[in-house]
Amino acid sequence: MQLATPLLITGLLSIFTPPLLAQWEALPDTPPIPKDNPQTAAKIELGKTLYFDPRLSSNGVVSCNSCHNVMAGGDDNRPNSIGVADQRGGRGAPSVWNAAHLSVQFWDGRAPTLEEQAKGPVTNPIEMGMPDWDAVIKMLANIPGYADLFKAAFEGDKNPMTADNAVKAIAAYERTLVTPNSPYDRYVKGDKKALNKQQIKGMETFLEIGCTSCHSGPNFSGPKLEMGTGFFMKFPTYPKTDYETQYQLTADPGRFEVTKKEADKNMWRVPTLRNVALTAPYFHNGLVSTLDEAVRVMAKTQLDKDLKDEQVADIVAFLNALTGEFPEQTMPRLPSTPGTTVINEIKK
Amino acid sequence: MQLATPLLITGLLSIFTPPLLAQWEALPDTPPIPKDNPQTAAKIELGKTLYFDPRLSSNGVVSCNSCHNVMAGGDDNRPNSIGVADQRGGRGAPSVWNAAHLSVQFWDGRAPTLEEQAKGPVTNPIEMGMPDWDAVIKMLANIPGYADLFKAAFEGDKNPMTADNAVKAIAAYERTLVTPNSPYDRYVKGDKKALNKQQIKGMETFLEIGCTSCHSGPNFSGPKLEMGTGFFMKFPTYPKTDYETQYQLTADPGRFEVTKKEADKNMWRVPTLRNVALTAPYFHNGLVSTLDEAVRVMAKTQLDKDLKDEQVADIVAFLNALTGEFPEQTMPRLPSTPGTTVINEIKK
Repeated sequence: MQLATPLLITGLLSIFTPPLLAQWEALPDTPPIPKDNPQTAAKIELGKTLYFDPRLSSNGVVSCNSCHNVMAGGDDNRPNSIGVADQRGGRGAPSVWNAAHLSVQFWDGRAPTLEEQAKGPVTNPIEMGMPDWDAVIKMLANIPGYADLFKAAFEGDKNPMTADNAVKAIAAYERTLVTPNSPYDRYVKGDKKALNKQQIKGMETFLEIGCTSCHSGPNFSGPKLEMGTGFFMKFPTYPKTDYETQYQLTADPGRFEVTKKEADKNMWRVPTLRNVALTAPYFHNGLVSTLDEAVRVMAKTQLDKDLKDEQVADIVAFLNALTGEFPEQTMPRLPSTPGTTVINEIKK
Repeated sequence: MQLATPLLITGLLSIFTPPLLAQWEALPDTPPIPKDNPQTAAKIELGKTLYFDPRLSSNGVVSCNSCHNVMAGGDDNRPNSIGVADQRGGRGAPSVWNAAHLSVQFWDGRAPTLEEQAKGPVTNPIEMGMPDWDAVIKMLANIPGYADLFKAAFEGDKNPMTADNAVKAIAAYERTLVTPNSPYDRYVKGDKKALNKQQIKGMETFLEIGCTSCHSGPNFSGPKLEMGTGFFMKFPTYPKTDYETQYQLTADPGRFEVTKKEADKNMWRVPTLRNVALTAPYFHNGLVSTLDEAVRVMAKTQLDKDLKDEQVADIVAFLNALTGEFPEQTMPRLPSTPGTTVINEIKK
């Protein structure tokens, strides 16, 4: 049963309400689709092809999937990702699974849409390292098969092969990357056997101690908001804990980097908890290795609570019930450049 | 029509015989399967999973598929491949497509089987960088889902999760990676419209000038030989050409590195030409960028012939007709480690 209750309200009030099933929502069948980028099979196919094509990087080796591995939990299970020339960023790769249900993208919410997000890593010098999108499009234009894929995906466009259309296609593919029917979803839809006793207990604890203050809504990433409107929270909210020092929680100022506003220091987009069991290590800097430790850190730094081991175990059991079903996917065929290569990195 | 003519003989005599269709063979329906590693669906599924699993590398980023990309021509279209820590080897990645039809593996033929080949890169310090196979198995043992996959693939084994079984599974998957029904295959099976005029002319030229002396047999990699028996050729056969200097053709001593025998200096396994249009750049060192230049170099260094531009274009047209059909594949789901990660590279 999908409920119409405004999540903004239930989310904020959840600390004070009993663990009613009415507060829990299953994942909607489809994520929000922007009006200017409707889903089509041809566009999704192009997007999937681009997503898996390592030629979108300066050394021909790094694809979107390298760091956001859809065959796994949608990330790379590393504290930070490895880009071209063995470079690393400061933050871990967020999962691509259910990213379509987030109202803003990146840890600091600096991209309002998946389209805008997709533009970033390709030309980031420490990620995929392409000099600019003109160079990407020039490269794609040298791969004969892409002309047809872009044409089919953007019928009627005079010049279909553009950066805007490339990221539209990638975003369209990413909007298919949703994981319904987790044990949690089946439970809230009425299958009372979908969760075991510990998971139900964990679900109650999750609500009672206040996790749903932030991790509310069907995606456990906050209330339903317009695409582009972020739901941010200060992390750590309760400062000066031992965890803060141990895991360098304030070293990265978070959203402050985007806005330069003092109020945005250590503010972060509330991440989804769907498939969270698959995306260790945890938090923006990936310095917390395990989910049980991540639960302890959250309870202490966000709710000022010291959890008992049993509570941690129960919540972790519940979080494992948020692992959904991953749709079976065929591998794309990457269009070829017969008799030549478009990868031009100088041989080392 | 698949012919029983012994290819060793037709191959060696081909320079002196007219371009009879009887000399050409389509790709067999299945590659040779070793008696001690029969194909089973469970084994292939395990092998595909391992093949795509980047956790088989020391930094958790490099999988077999990183360098031997099955979504493309089975390699990475680079002169050499990028391993962990941005390291490069001296030789290009050979294609995994139709490798099952080669009687030995690696450029220098140092592995007699796909099983032996699969052992190499995982523990090569400049490729996937795992310290040894014990470490690989220990890592796999920490991923719960792999226990079931190994058990299903090696029913009856007391201890199914071993290095030998891992490479058996990878090899079993690789034996599914064959590309039948190229225009060439359809032509020799009787579809006279499968090749255009230029391709037929190129096919005749390919035979007349002597390319089939080495590139014979259904895989264009030499005569049918027992698994483990290599078919090697000296490259360059005719020394002191300008190409030799320009493309550093003798810098790498080839099979000599394996045997340390003087006679093996610059000896190389004859590679398949199937899908050769998809695997630029060319030769062991990847220094020749285009297929037409590769044809010129081969004609000069191996046959002492200077080809006319028209001949080169015809042969290239024919070689493009060796691009086969790539079987549609589903993506494997990589088994997870709920709430933790097995990737232990220190954060940089």
